[in-house]
Amino acid sequence: MKEITRTPMVILNFKTYLESTGKNALKLAEISEEVAQETGVNIAVAPQHADLLRISSEVEIPVLAQHVDAVDAGGHTGSVLLESIKEAGAVGTLINHSEIRMKLADIQNVVAKTIEHQLVSVVCTNNVETSAAAATLQPTFVAIEPPELIGSGIPVSQAEPEIVEGTVEVIHQIDPGVKVLCGAGISTGDDMQAALKLGSEGVLLASGIILADDPKAALTDLVSKI
Amino acid sequence: MKEITRTPMVILNFKTYLESTGKNALKLAEISEEVAQETGVNIAVAPQHADLLRISSEVEIPVLAQHVDAVDAGGHTGSVLLESIKEAGAVGTLINHSEIRMKLADIQNVVAKTIEHQLVSVVCTNNVETSAAAATLQPTFVAIEPPELIGSGIPVSQAEPEIVEGTVEVIHQIDPGVKVLCGAGISTGDDMQAALKLGSEGVLLASGIILADDPKAALTDLVSKI
Amino acid sequence: MKEITRTPMVILNFKTYLESTGKNALKLAEISEEVAQETGVNIAVAPQHADLLRISSEVEIPVLAQHVDAVDAGGHTGSVLLESIKEAGAVGTLINHSEIRMKLADIQNVVAKTIEHQLVSVVCTNNVETSAAAATLQPTFVAIEPPELIGSGIPVSQAEPEIVEGTVEVIHQIDPGVKVLCGAGISTGDDMQAALKLGSEGVLLASGIILADDPKAALTDLVSKI
Amino acid sequence: MKEITRTPMVILNFKTYLESTGKNALKLAEISEEVAQETGVNIAVAPQHADLLRISSEVEIPVLAQHVDAVDAGGHTGSVLLESIKEAGAVGTLINHSEIRMKLADIQNVVAKTIEHQLVSVVCTNNVETSAAAATLQPTFVAIEPPELIGSGIPVSQAEPEIVEGTVEVIHQIDPGVKVLCGAGISTGDDMQAALKLGSEGVLLASGIILADDPKAALTDLVSKI
Repeated sequence: MKEITRTPMVILNFKTYLESTGKNALKLAEISEEVAQETGVNIAVAPQHADLLRISSEVEIPVLAQHVDAVDAGGHTGSVLLESIKEAGAVGTLINHSEIRMKLADIQNVVAKTIEHQLVSVVCTNNVETSAAAATLQPTFVAIEPPELIGSGIPVSQAEPEIVEGTVEVIHQIDPGVKVLCGAGISTGDDMQAALKLGSEGVLLASGIILADDPKAALTDLVSKI
Repeated sequence: MKEITRTPMVILNFKTYLESTGKNALKLAEISEEVAQETGVNIAVAPQHADLLRISSEVEIPVLAQHVDAVDAGGHTGSVLLESIKEAGAVGTLINHSEIRMKLADIQNVVAKTIEHQLVSVVCTNNVETSAAAATLQPTFVAIEPPELIGSGIPVSQAEPEIVEGTVEVIHQIDPGVKVLCGAGISTGDDMQAALKLGSEGVLLASGIILADDPKAALTDLVSKI
Repeated sequence: MKEITRTPMVILNFKTYLESTGKNALKLAEISEEVAQETGVNIAVAPQHADLLRISSEVEIPVLAQHVDAVDAGGHTGSVLLESIKEAGAVGTLINHSEIRMKLADIQNVVAKTIEHQLVSVVCTNNVETSAAAATLQPTFVAIEPPELIGSGIPVSQAEPEIVEGTVEVIHQIDPGVKVLCGAGISTGDDMQAALKLGSEGVLLASGIILADDPKAALTDLVSKI
Repeated sequence: MKEITRTPMVILNFKTYLESTGKNALKLAEISEEVAQETGVNIAVAPQHADLLRISSEVEIPVLAQHVDAVDAGGHTGSVLLESIKEAGAVGTLINHSEIRMKLADIQNVVAKTIEHQLVSVVCTNNVETSAAAATLQPTFVAIEPPELIGSGIPVSQAEPEIVEGTVEVIHQIDPGVKVLCGAGISTGDDMQAALKLGSEGVLLASGIILADDPKAALTDLVSKI
């Protein structure tokens, strides 16, 4: 069973690295599944759209899309229809990642569509203020990621702990049902432990694992101190 | 063999209709393959990104993506990497469709990447002037589609034949190696015949076939007067 | 004195009509000033960026920009810097109008900059959900405008009163200091009266006045039943 | 008389620096006018939209906008209507600057509108290929600026002379009536001299003058070796 909302949660964003595209993407998803099974930690993967089916048909862990467009079925050539990623086996989607920021009206539209289709939504945000705004839309998760730390190797839990704590606090005021993830610069077991201590219920990460010399070892370390 | 550049050429754009998403997309691709085999006409299909692998692994006709983003491998969450659609079995891509217009610099970037990766490029344009500009970039095809006729049921070959003829003329001046397709409002054998008479080497179409009561009959009719 | 936040408030959005560009914009601003003086109602005008200085230097009523980009001073050719509209005499700006929707992160950035520069912010929204999200950012006003009614001549206060009431209710829960305006289809004194009865503190409107045969008469009628 | 197309031509892009906003923008335009009068070189300035009227009403040198949107008069809140910048005294506009890249269809639309309104168009491009595409649209100028050199202080005429020469060559093949400017990293008299030797008919520049300790001295030096 794909328990996408059991926490602590690790979401591995495959981005558009060649190391996580096509056959490499499948390999990385299989490694993620192994670590999930060996450690019991809930790990989800977010590959590119063209890789969703390849991966969802081969692994048992939850698969998320990286993005969905705010369009309904019809004449929208090149856009990502929510129904298409669902039929390709995704159980949810990232929304508003810092590398593909969305209009407020479109974030609301896509979160509402995920609710209607019983999919999981992970709305990414850049600071406490936008996290509060995102929480009013009732997504499954808000993932706070200060953009200046993404891919930096400096963990948000260490560089700007007050942003994680502030986000947890304001979101719990607005809607205690919304879970908080944190991201940006996370790669080790210490980073993840710190993230959970600050009140988040998991992490969203990418390069720290994907570009590691040994992704399996890196992922195993990441979840070792939960 | 997937002879993507043999003309006359029919490209069926699946857009984001539910009738051409997921399992329905595969069914429509199989129908297209049947008609291609029965008639000998070169028919390609352009499904959504999440459906590329599902289709390319099941049919022998050429499969195109609907869009590729102007990004290189790396941190570009949610974007469509050319390498990802290639590994999912696409032999080329539509570029700059009227429903997802692109920046000039990005069109040039993606056309150059298709050349580097030996993929087919179909740059969509809206008038004679932008067709000329697109032709300087040396794509495989320029597909001229006056946007006001897209999905209208009024064929461009009848409503604005001078746009097709003007495009053919100006492109042949700039680079005779670039082939011209025409689209917008095309659905019948008469429309396609008229399009070829105006100097184009094929058509790009969508709703006229996808939303037809009997897509196979519609597609068979489309190619009946070549 | 330019009392931009005294309610009830009327904001006349000049959009990009020729009837409200350049010299015509100044004329319309002068008419608006006359009606404000004759009736005592607080009327503000929102002309195009190139017309801000022309108007702010000639009339005493508040002048707003139609949009500001989320950029800081520097290398951002073609963008609208908040400091530039302030120096051109604007006392605030519309933000996220339905005709120029913005990313959530950018809305937050611009609202924060208006607060820092002591300018008025009017964040436009399309439904109750995005109004709630906008309210968490603490703008001066949230202007709820169902996009399907903009320019329709069908007043939102009549067609979808529950959207106005719902917005007023949810915003007062989140931050009672945020004032609610309503727009879309508003043009007569009855429309404005209905908008105020639903709990809004004013209106945002455009074509109903700008394209009227006699804008002064139309504006006078609009504020006649307050 | 504002001889906007007499070459060699210097276009000073004010971008969104505070040093070239509002009253500072006027001061810089007056300095540019002085240098133009003292040296006889054709110097134009491109301030922000909100500063166009302030400057065009005070100086005799040509004033350009930094950007125009591809919209016609009507309901386009926040967009830059060509008619608005014309009425504010602009005699032309930059188009597709690297900091506000435009869709191909929109570049074509705006160039066509400048021709219709007898305004000057300066289409910025990033490489030889996009310069060729831009030239087919018959703008007054194509300004080639490799984006990686913008604001770098390394002049394109020295770092990548082949891009300037290649652009001059390809544009003269496509339409000898289109003049070539070059930009990126230009700040001294030597840079400008080199740019002209490579076949360009002038330069587009910004920070090298605007952020100079003594802008008048910097501008005088720039045009000293023509």
